[in-house]
Amino acid sequence: MSDLTGPIHVVGAGLLGASIGLACRRAGLEVLLSDRNPDHVRTASGLGAGTPYAGQPAQLVVVAVPPDQLAAEISAALATGAVVTDVGSVKSQPLTQATGELSNYVGGHPMAGSERSGPLAASAGLFDGRPWAITPHAGSTEVATDLVTELVVLCGAVPVRLTPEEHDRAVARTSHLPHLLAALVAGRLADAPVDHLALSGQGVRDVTRIAGGDPELWQQIVTANAVAVLELLGEVRGQLDVLIDAVGSGSREDLVAVLEHGVSGTRAIPGKHGGPLTPMRSVFVSVPDHPGELARLFFDAGASEVNIEDIHIDHDPGRPVGLVELLVAESRAEHLLASLEAKGWAVHR
Amino acid sequence: MSDLTGPIHVVGAGLLGASIGLACRRAGLEVLLSDRNPDHVRTASGLGAGTPYAGQPAQLVVVAVPPDQLAAEISAALATGAVVTDVGSVKSQPLTQATGELSNYVGGHPMAGSERSGPLAASAGLFDGRPWAITPHAGSTEVATDLVTELVVLCGAVPVRLTPEEHDRAVARTSHLPHLLAALVAGRLADAPVDHLALSGQGVRDVTRIAGGDPELWQQIVTANAVAVLELLGEVRGQLDVLIDAVGSGSREDLVAVLEHGVSGTRAIPGKHGGPLTPMRSVFVSVPDHPGELARLFFDAGASEVNIEDIHIDHDPGRPVGLVELLVAESRAEHLLASLEAKGWAVHR
Repeated sequence: MSDLTGPIHVVGAGLLGASIGLACRRAGLEVLLSDRNPDHVRTASGLGAGTPYAGQPAQLVVVAVPPDQLAAEISAALATGAVVTDVGSVKSQPLTQATGELSNYVGGHPMAGSERSGPLAASAGLFDGRPWAITPHAGSTEVATDLVTELVVLCGAVPVRLTPEEHDRAVARTSHLPHLLAALVAGRLADAPVDHLALSGQGVRDVTRIAGGDPELWQQIVTANAVAVLELLGEVRGQLDVLIDAVGSGSREDLVAVLEHGVSGTRAIPGKHGGPLTPMRSVFVSVPDHPGELARLFFDAGASEVNIEDIHIDHDPGRPVGLVELLVAESRAEHLLASLEAKGWAVHR
Repeated sequence: MSDLTGPIHVVGAGLLGASIGLACRRAGLEVLLSDRNPDHVRTASGLGAGTPYAGQPAQLVVVAVPPDQLAAEISAALATGAVVTDVGSVKSQPLTQATGELSNYVGGHPMAGSERSGPLAASAGLFDGRPWAITPHAGSTEVATDLVTELVVLCGAVPVRLTPEEHDRAVARTSHLPHLLAALVAGRLADAPVDHLALSGQGVRDVTRIAGGDPELWQQIVTANAVAVLELLGEVRGQLDVLIDAVGSGSREDLVAVLEHGVSGTRAIPGKHGGPLTPMRSVFVSVPDHPGELARLFFDAGASEVNIEDIHIDHDPGRPVGLVELLVAESRAEHLLASLEAKGWAVHR
């Protein structure tokens, strides 16, 4: 494919917009940048994400603005006759609110960058290997859909094609509901006696981490996807009542049923980047807490030729030794344990 | 302190019991092991966690069995006249159910090991720097409390002293409620169309991870702490209704209030091991996906003398480059970025 020749006009030079600009420039395409905030355009063009937009015609307009501004910016872009896409978290609402030649509009949503913001955080590699939803509607032209698909591939992302409605139901389940319930769990901590929080472990940190996201942005996202979110909140309310009855009445079978349903849910999540989920196992290594040691560990781990899927470091600044958790494929764990042990590392499963 | 001279009788040679045995043996104390499952005793003693119990008198008995068996085993241990502690997740119920000379009983609860199980996963380092709740009751003797505190320090853990009731309310909030709500979020995924789950990102993985825990064990934990858990589930139900009303009526102020309450909750969690929470920032590095590169990165990072608090690797097995996230103190991020950039690494914020 090489229909995407540019220029590409990126509306909104924040983290996502500037990162798309950098990826397109990397591919040698001309990128035009605009933003309500002139500082963002200055910063993004300074990083090499493109040049300031001055009314030039564009082949493709990428709208990367907050949910509340999406429909207006998409409509304005369609008026230029260009093919238009966006990177909004919700896809049905802008489609119903936007006006103009909608056949040239194909929505999009990259699964990346949610936790940072601003052009300074931008990177051409931000989308590498990430799922990027492409959501053509019934009236979208093939030409427009192909052009947007080219952009996604050019950015290094993995295209996932869904209807706008499917997309919104999917993210309500995989993103919006988890965010709202994480906020409810975190809310209980805000009300807690400080000394009780000394018992906080990694589990509660993981559950509540995303609840630290920008309330104003998330309010816009959830509001824009209200229908799909409400349906799931209703299901959760029903399950919560089942849970309350089970714990209150001491009905262990009902409680186990809810917990087992949760276990099957964790198993339903595909592997990173949608790949198959391979069973993982943790290998724990005690590492002296000074600079050279991590390098030595990864040198030895690298020599074992076991692919390390993820790493967690758990150390107390006050202590001389840290615990490093290496997550590897179950089938390779024993080999890694043996080879690290042979190199003198204190390891355990 | 050196009142703890042993022998120490560990009842229940699973992950926690065997790890305590290993830590005590490391300190040169005699350890006696018993378990309903003779295989566990064989495995644990094979690992050097102690020798099989054969009726010998002990100075301290550590009960490390599932919640449902706690009271019976604590009572049996008290009958020997020894000082008794346990590692159960709930502290009030065994106290009310146990019989005998309760002044010799001081409850305990190490914040470690919840995700693995069995003596094979045991390690003398399992408790290094972890909080370990010590919960003397009104009638506990100072002698017993001091002895248990010595055990905790000997295991390398950080003693956190609470009443049994405070402890149970604390873990209901920091452990049991997060687990139950993670199970509800995960449950929604079990019901999802498979193609929708392709949009799952790191957020939903983090929120649901702990929901993969053993339903039978968690059913016992939650049931044993029903009163404190029910109080919090009631609060969550009320907040969930506020959330449903806010989203349903489009009341953005109410929605933002719930989300902001969640943000303040995430900020209330103390740093790892109860230390002060220092503001962190992520530094992202693109790393060629072959063995030597991680070692080279950590060698260069080590040379910058910036303390790396945590690491995440995000790579698609199919792609040549992985993204490594280094979490460091905010004040050191710029220095790390500069020194890695100087060494030729592709970094971004």
